[in-house]
Amino acid sequence: MKSQQPTRLTMVGGGSWATALIKILSENNVLIKWWLRSKADADHIRQFHHNKSYLSDVQINPRKVKICTKIRDAFKDSDYIILAVPAAFVGDALGGLEARDFAGKCVISAIKGMIPEKNQLVTDWVSDQYGVPTSRMAVIAGPCHAEEVALEKQSYLTIGSTDLDCADEVAQLLTCRFVQASPLADIYGIEYSAVMKNIIALASGITRGIGYGDNFQAVLVSNAMQEIKRFVDAVYPQHRDLSGSAYLGDLLVTAYSPFSRNRTFGTLIGRGYTIQSAQAEMNMIAEGYYAVKSIHAINRQYKVDMPIVEAVYNVLYERASPVTEMKALQQKLK
Amino acid sequence: MKSQQPTRLTMVGGGSWATALIKILSENNVLIKWWLRSKADADHIRQFHHNKSYLSDVQINPRKVKICTKIRDAFKDSDYIILAVPAAFVGDALGGLEARDFAGKCVISAIKGMIPEKNQLVTDWVSDQYGVPTSRMAVIAGPCHAEEVALEKQSYLTIGSTDLDCADEVAQLLTCRFVQASPLADIYGIEYSAVMKNIIALASGITRGIGYGDNFQAVLVSNAMQEIKRFVDAVYPQHRDLSGSAYLGDLLVTAYSPFSRNRTFGTLIGRGYTIQSAQAEMNMIAEGYYAVKSIHAINRQYKVDMPIVEAVYNVLYERASPVTEMKALQQKLK
Repeated sequence: MKSQQPTRLTMVGGGSWATALIKILSENNVLIKWWLRSKADADHIRQFHHNKSYLSDVQINPRKVKICTKIRDAFKDSDYIILAVPAAFVGDALGGLEARDFAGKCVISAIKGMIPEKNQLVTDWVSDQYGVPTSRMAVIAGPCHAEEVALEKQSYLTIGSTDLDCADEVAQLLTCRFVQASPLADIYGIEYSAVMKNIIALASGITRGIGYGDNFQAVLVSNAMQEIKRFVDAVYPQHRDLSGSAYLGDLLVTAYSPFSRNRTFGTLIGRGYTIQSAQAEMNMIAEGYYAVKSIHAINRQYKVDMPIVEAVYNVLYERASPVTEMKALQQKLK
Repeated sequence: MKSQQPTRLTMVGGGSWATALIKILSENNVLIKWWLRSKADADHIRQFHHNKSYLSDVQINPRKVKICTKIRDAFKDSDYIILAVPAAFVGDALGGLEARDFAGKCVISAIKGMIPEKNQLVTDWVSDQYGVPTSRMAVIAGPCHAEEVALEKQSYLTIGSTDLDCADEVAQLLTCRFVQASPLADIYGIEYSAVMKNIIALASGITRGIGYGDNFQAVLVSNAMQEIKRFVDAVYPQHRDLSGSAYLGDLLVTAYSPFSRNRTFGTLIGRGYTIQSAQAEMNMIAEGYYAVKSIHAINRQYKVDMPIVEAVYNVLYERASPVTEMKALQQKLK
């Protein structure tokens, strides 16, 4: 491997997931251009070789990672682009780029969310906007807290693409000592399932906040798996086993984690906070808050039976009482 | 309903699950004969109307529940029998009974385990031993901590039987204000899955004890669902959706509960305790310890790929090092 030319890759985003991915990629023969919006963070990494804002224990190897703050420079000469900014900021981050900047590159989304207002998956939007062929797009999924990657705890990723060769290439870049990445020939199912897990985490939080227990939580998650399957199979029909790590595993790590922002936001709502005061309390907005609006809108077309999504939507956008809404949901589960 | 004759039912067993089921049944028009092995516990309930050994907050209504210590008396005139003793003691509890004592009765197993040495499911054994037709046998499953039932937290049960009418009858007896029970036309799949979840909880504990994190746990549980499906579909093929509450839900409530005995036992093993010292420390034996031996033996015939069961078996019965064995298992998951 050492004699081979290194793979050239661009990382877009300066958060904890981007930092964790940089750590994984640095284990392999990859040269990275790392674009960060924040000049202060970029300067700090250049000087001190760690990201002071996220996973600050992770050492950044300057021989492998070049820091950039101009997006066009960051793209130049790279064969792979990883997008790791929140869905709401991806348009901003790529602002000024054109289709030719993407020519010949493989674009990988590490984003779990939808483009707000457009109700569009990130990969769909990138394809539309920059003409990247679907066969050169992939998503990174799997139950993977960035914090555990930083600690080198054994983790697993699933790389989804409509093109299995493309998924396989990316999986090889992301497999290292403490991470095993596997290719899977599904992209939209994985992306939708990642979006929906945040809504389920909201539901999990809301019911916790009201006072439901572990018995209910287990039934909620089981029913959620069936609801996710109904939805993704309706929107992008293909054979898929939802007990795979990319689907079930990802839902578990979110729904059972007390650190999940979506779950925490839901818990506040369940305890009787208004949406405004819950947002103020958390000082950030949970992705599930936008996701449920998008999924609800998309489902107007498909009319899939989705009692959990419906209940969360009614609580967050129709001013329904959490207690009444969850009592009604309770009757629909089994 | 009040003018109707009450349903006559016998509960066999004096533990926390039996006590929780008594509480549920007492909400309905059911007259219960409750058999307990312990004379002291029986006397206490007769006098003070609660089970001092388990769920002692649950009030026992003496107009609905008659306490028995002779098993043949307890069986007389009942249409339904619920078995709620540990699998290892069911032969003892029913000692002295004959096929005619079971004639015409519906027998329901609330036991999650196999008859030791015989490697037989409880319902299979009862059928063989007492000639109860399969169509009059059912199992009670679902993610249901007895403690949460005692607190009247909303819970769900699944009643499995080869005969859907039988499952439906039992589901009606067990549906009340805070419990929703649903019938399902599967009995062996549910029973095997309940047995296997204890083995998965052991694996979950062992890996926790070694130091694996949440990312690994989510992948372990996802792979476990696939392993359970392969096994039950090989042993009793029929269409079943393993994301149902009786399967996935039950696994979640066990694998994610820090109160699970199986998980605790596994954690001690993962930390380096010997089996003997872990058992001494816990002062009880985890069901999964026997279950893995039975499932491993049964699988000699079916040869299903079961890396998790295999790893737990090797650690508990082949003196394999937990660290080495889980390192090998880690390579097989994805």
